[in-house]
Amino acid sequence: MHRPAAPAAVRQGSLRELNLAVVLGRIAAAPRPPSRADVAAATGLTRATVSAVVDDLIAGRLVAEAEPAPRAGAGRPARGLVLAGDGPAGLGLEVNVDYLAVCVTDLAGRVRHHTVHRADLRPLPPADALARLVALADAARLDARRQGLTLAGAVLAVPGLVDAAGLVRLAPNLGWRDVPVPALLAAHPPLAEPVPGIPALVVENEANLAALGELHADPDGPVSFLHISGEVGIGAGIVLDGALFRGVRGFSGEIGHLTVRPAGRPCGCGGRGCLERYAGQEAVLAAAGLDRADLPADTAAARLADLAAAGHHATRAALAEAGAALGVAVAGVVNLLDLDTVVLGGGYARLTPWLRPPVLAEVSRRVLTAAWSPVTVRPSALGPEAAVVGAAGSVVRRIVAAPVGWLNRAG
Amino acid sequence: MHRPAAPAAVRQGSLRELNLAVVLGRIAAAPRPPSRADVAAATGLTRATVSAVVDDLIAGRLVAEAEPAPRAGAGRPARGLVLAGDGPAGLGLEVNVDYLAVCVTDLAGRVRHHTVHRADLRPLPPADALARLVALADAARLDARRQGLTLAGAVLAVPGLVDAAGLVRLAPNLGWRDVPVPALLAAHPPLAEPVPGIPALVVENEANLAALGELHADPDGPVSFLHISGEVGIGAGIVLDGALFRGVRGFSGEIGHLTVRPAGRPCGCGGRGCLERYAGQEAVLAAAGLDRADLPADTAAARLADLAAAGHHATRAALAEAGAALGVAVAGVVNLLDLDTVVLGGGYARLTPWLRPPVLAEVSRRVLTAAWSPVTVRPSALGPEAAVVGAAGSVVRRIVAAPVGWLNRAG
Repeated sequence: MHRPAAPAAVRQGSLRELNLAVVLGRIAAAPRPPSRADVAAATGLTRATVSAVVDDLIAGRLVAEAEPAPRAGAGRPARGLVLAGDGPAGLGLEVNVDYLAVCVTDLAGRVRHHTVHRADLRPLPPADALARLVALADAARLDARRQGLTLAGAVLAVPGLVDAAGLVRLAPNLGWRDVPVPALLAAHPPLAEPVPGIPALVVENEANLAALGELHADPDGPVSFLHISGEVGIGAGIVLDGALFRGVRGFSGEIGHLTVRPAGRPCGCGGRGCLERYAGQEAVLAAAGLDRADLPADTAAARLADLAAAGHHATRAALAEAGAALGVAVAGVVNLLDLDTVVLGGGYARLTPWLRPPVLAEVSRRVLTAAWSPVTVRPSALGPEAAVVGAAGSVVRRIVAAPVGWLNRAG
Repeated sequence: MHRPAAPAAVRQGSLRELNLAVVLGRIAAAPRPPSRADVAAATGLTRATVSAVVDDLIAGRLVAEAEPAPRAGAGRPARGLVLAGDGPAGLGLEVNVDYLAVCVTDLAGRVRHHTVHRADLRPLPPADALARLVALADAARLDARRQGLTLAGAVLAVPGLVDAAGLVRLAPNLGWRDVPVPALLAAHPPLAEPVPGIPALVVENEANLAALGELHADPDGPVSFLHISGEVGIGAGIVLDGALFRGVRGFSGEIGHLTVRPAGRPCGCGGRGCLERYAGQEAVLAAAGLDRADLPADTAAARLADLAAAGHHATRAALAEAGAALGVAVAGVVNLLDLDTVVLGGGYARLTPWLRPPVLAEVSRRVLTAAWSPVTVRPSALGPEAAVVGAAGSVVRRIVAAPVGWLNRAG
């Protein structure tokens, strides 16, 4: 008969893992730096256990003691516990149609490094675009190291459909099809230190990462919402009850290819009348009479916002038309999913003042429940940085959720 | 200090509840009638516990012993356990635009009574329509009683938006707005026997109930799918991972008001170009050159299917046009939710041979992932009866999930 090996030891190992995660999670979630006693009270663990676990977490550079706040009363102030600012960090990467971005966040989700490199990536072979991104990532790693941080995992955002193995099946606006990103990146030195339990590289749809970034940027925000990333392409992340809804095969959220004019303009996807052809960045620039080649290194969205704010008629008309098309798509989503919050992200964030009215007009005209179930349309808190910040943040959230891998590596 | 009353007894009560549910659930889920020993082996409970629980369930008319199957070998064959066919039953009710329906299912989900009464309900005040339904329900109760069944709860399907209190906020095709269904039904004798833990009446959107009916009609079917009920109105039930997705406020699935022609035909909802105006029953009949006043008591869908099968050109063209509009909406849903199965229900079920090709053509043209992620479009197993059967089934599934209420009532 088979006898399992040392079940008691296994159970002790699991218990340590659990306690580490519970204590670290409590410190991460507390509104103010908690004392060891606060953590014990909140978790139901004994003071002794909490102290031992906190010592482990401090030694592993996951937790630090905050400077004591000056106190008027008598007695030594308790030193609060905070997530370490010099421990593991997440590396967020993004390849988009007209820029590359790299971001490093520390355990608390603070952005410690952020670079955006503007360039039209469409003419480049994928391997070359990724090589440029690796160069930016190398600079980010050096900067992180100078700040005492260790990159513990990387997540790459791409504007397309990604399968579970990291193969980019299709990124229509970038012109990528069946690009084996992990294999191409394997030609370069690793982007991050190996940490047990943390994937060295995850490739994920940018709209999904942006929605996650937005979800975590506002802990008091709604738990179910539609996040729309409006860039050259338009993608959506659907957050239901605090979790990303990925669909049966991971390809959800392709709102840019929702049909808004069935016999309308042909789209690169093979369809006709897709939302992107009316509300994507290129369509809006064209309708506003702007040539993107004339634009400075600044983003197109910023230029459009400046012109609209200055009362430029063609730009306002172009945004009204884009907003109406976007509103048809949003009304469809609300009719279908009964969501009450729509977050305009990416380039749309700063265009919200001009997009919101036509979107709401279509929603109120086309949504069956609009009369008694209002829909909120608001700009994203993170804007165009949401995807790359969400990417980096997803690495550190993994570490906070299961810190034992990092500690085993560090120890 | 407050002292909780008899916590041990409470805990024993909970244990009995749990064991009753576990044993009954096992008997319900077993592919063949299991013996007491089979149930013990499958649940990890002792033979003695299983026997005591089974005795309780048999005394309460929830379980019966199947007739022993003839066996060639020696020894007395074990008698298998089955869900009782003479215990509690669910009452399903439906008010739709052009018919009323009533259905009784037993614990095993078998339909034991089913009446459909065809009539245009639009001219009737809601109270009168409900009074007619109650008369049908009375006849169903007598028939159920004659078969030894006790109605243990009722669920009413309506083609509209229902809030948590059973208020029908809006049923556009029926012309209902803010109809307090539970209050109107309270003027009649109760529809079902009172059973602890089982609501006497639930009012629910018919497309949601139809999707649930479909989910439970095929235990080996997909766990995530879109179920479209095509009648005068068009509604959808979205099933994700084996559960109905109701939306933030319970109003999900309004696919009939998805915009398929933004500047198209005005819709009763106040919008324009809604799917219903192109693929709803009335639109299809009109396009086929049929006057619904000429139709016999048979369903419009059956008539359309007969004509299409006979090669009637106008009908085929009407179904092709409806299918194309439906395909635009389905493509939107697939782009958004990445579902791989679409079930055509209600009147659409028998029209599937003519609707499927244009739906698939639009999906393959408009869905970004269509090339490598095929979508299956198939007719529902239950067809137009799905909502009322799903309604009745949802009552008995509640009893199977938590049988103690019924037993406490019966005992």
